[in-house]
Amino acid sequence: MAREFIAAVAQMGPIARDEPRASAVARLCAMMREAHARAARLVVFPELALTSFFPRWVLEGDALDAWFETEMPGPETEPLFALSAQLGIAFHLGYAELTPEGRHFNTAILVDGGQIRGKYRKVHLPGHREPEEWRPFQHLEKRYFETGDLGFPVFDGLGGRLGMCICNDRRWPETWRMLGLGGAELVALGYNTPLHYPPAPEHDHLQYFHNALSVQAGCYANGLWALAAAKAGREEGCDLIGGSLIVAPTGEIVAQAQGLGDEVITARVDLDRCSEIRRNIFDFAQHREPQLYGLLTAAKPR
Amino acid sequence: MAREFIAAVAQMGPIARDEPRASAVARLCAMMREAHARAARLVVFPELALTSFFPRWVLEGDALDAWFETEMPGPETEPLFALSAQLGIAFHLGYAELTPEGRHFNTAILVDGGQIRGKYRKVHLPGHREPEEWRPFQHLEKRYFETGDLGFPVFDGLGGRLGMCICNDRRWPETWRMLGLGGAELVALGYNTPLHYPPAPEHDHLQYFHNALSVQAGCYANGLWALAAAKAGREEGCDLIGGSLIVAPTGEIVAQAQGLGDEVITARVDLDRCSEIRRNIFDFAQHREPQLYGLLTAAKPR
Repeated sequence: MAREFIAAVAQMGPIARDEPRASAVARLCAMMREAHARAARLVVFPELALTSFFPRWVLEGDALDAWFETEMPGPETEPLFALSAQLGIAFHLGYAELTPEGRHFNTAILVDGGQIRGKYRKVHLPGHREPEEWRPFQHLEKRYFETGDLGFPVFDGLGGRLGMCICNDRRWPETWRMLGLGGAELVALGYNTPLHYPPAPEHDHLQYFHNALSVQAGCYANGLWALAAAKAGREEGCDLIGGSLIVAPTGEIVAQAQGLGDEVITARVDLDRCSEIRRNIFDFAQHREPQLYGLLTAAKPR
Repeated sequence: MAREFIAAVAQMGPIARDEPRASAVARLCAMMREAHARAARLVVFPELALTSFFPRWVLEGDALDAWFETEMPGPETEPLFALSAQLGIAFHLGYAELTPEGRHFNTAILVDGGQIRGKYRKVHLPGHREPEEWRPFQHLEKRYFETGDLGFPVFDGLGGRLGMCICNDRRWPETWRMLGLGGAELVALGYNTPLHYPPAPEHDHLQYFHNALSVQAGCYANGLWALAAAKAGREEGCDLIGGSLIVAPTGEIVAQAQGLGDEVITARVDLDRCSEIRRNIFDFAQHREPQLYGLLTAAKPR
C-alpha cells in the first residue's frame, strides 16, 4: 500500500450544550467531504467531537451518562462510518465511551473501510476529581473518566504503523516515546484545551506555544508524523484554543489552522520520511540507554 | 540561600587544534569575569571546553589520551577554580576525563567555592565506533568515551537542586525526565553540534531549531530552567552551531547568543518559578502513570 498520501485535520468550532449529536455529525461529515475533495486519505477529528466539552460542568447519574456513547457506531454516528466507506477515507474520532460494564473512558478510534481498526483510551487525565467552586469552569476529567486501560497501542493502517493519543497526553514525553518504541509512524490526536488555565493564569499567553512545542518535540524525538485537531473557539462561555497542526518527523509544522471555527487543513504525508530521524539521530537501538532510565517506571510517591 | 539569582551562559568560539589549554582557560576566565561583572552567580561553559572537538579525528594511544584531563583541577585548569573562588561565582565546565583506572568519559562538573560540587558523565554518546571514510569529519564519541556510569545525578547548590547533561543528551526526553524526577530545578549543559550532519544533510537547516526545540521541550515538560552553552563557529574546517540559550520552566527562551564567537548571555533565574509548572500541569505525582510506561525501561532489541 502507498506509504505517501494526503492527510487532513478537521478542526471544529464550538459545540453548544444543546447542540444535538446529529448536528455535530453533520458538521463532521461536511469536513470529511471537504477532506476527500482535497484528496485526503485520512481525516482527524478532535477529542470528544460529538458534544460540548461536558467535564466543565458538575453532572451525575443519567445526566452525566447522557454525554457518553454506548455503542460505536450508534444511530447518530452511523453516517460518519457510511460516508467514510463510501468515499474511501479513513477517520479518527474522539468521543466519550460508556462500556456495557458501566465503565467510562475518554476514547478515540481509527476507522477505515467502515470498520474500527484501532481504539485508544486516554491515559493522562488532567483536571481534578472534586468540584472546586473557585473555578470559573470545572475540569472534571479525573472524576468522569477512568485512566485508559489499553496502554499505547500501535496498529497497522494506511500502509504503515499508526498510533493515537488524546489532548493532555500530548504534553507527556512518555506518550510519544511509548508510541515511538511501539513503531508508530503517524499519531492522530484531538484536543479541547482551554485558553485560560485558572491554576496559573500567568501562562494563558503560552497555550498555543505549549501545544505546538509538545507536538513538535514528540514528533522530532520519535521521528513520526502527528495530526493534531482542536475543538476551538468560545464554547458555552469557555474559550478553547485552535492551532490545529500537521507536524513532520523533523518537528516542522507543515500545516496549521488559521482560525477558531470548522476548518480543514491538509498536507502530504510520506511515512518513509520517519527513517530520516529514526535511522540517524534517534536510532533507538543504537543510542538509547534504558538500563539507566529506572526512575521512569518507578512507582509514584504516595 | 537566595533562590533567585543572575545566571550566565558563556558561549565559546572555535578552539584551534594547536591552541593550548592555557589559552582556552584564559578565554574562559575572561568570560567568567564578564559574567561576574554582570552580577552572575553561575556561569555555564560548553562541552569539551578546553580543547578542539577531537572526536572528529582518528586518534590512538597517547595521541588520543593527550586530549584528556587526568586531574581536575590540574595545573592548566587551576586558574578557573581560583578565580571562581575569588569572585564567588559558580561554574559548569565540560572536559574529557581520563580516570586513574584508564577509563575515558565525556564529563562535566559544577564547581562552587573552589570545590567540585557535582559531576556528570555523558550517557547518550552520538556518532559511531569505527572510522567511516566517506565522512568529511569523523564523530567518534562512541569510540573514545564510555557510556557515563553516574546516572543522572541531582545535587544541592545555589539554593536549589541542580542537574547536568551534555550535548546529545539534550535531545533525549529521558534525560530531562530523569533529571526532573530527581528534583532538578536547573540543568546546565554544553554542546559541540556540527551544522552539517552527513547522514542526513537535508536536515542541516534544522540544527538550530532542533537545539532550541529539545531544550525548550525538556524545560517545559519538567518545569525547570536550562542553561545551554555552545562551542560555536568554524573549528578546524568544521562548522559548529551557536544559539546558546537560557530557557525558563515555561519553555520560553529568555536569553540567546547572537553570533558564533565567545559571548556571555545572562538572565534572572528564579528557582521558585519551577512550581508554576510542577505543581500544575506537570504535577508528576498527580498525573504520571508509570505503571503504563513499561517499554521505556525494557532492554533494547539486539
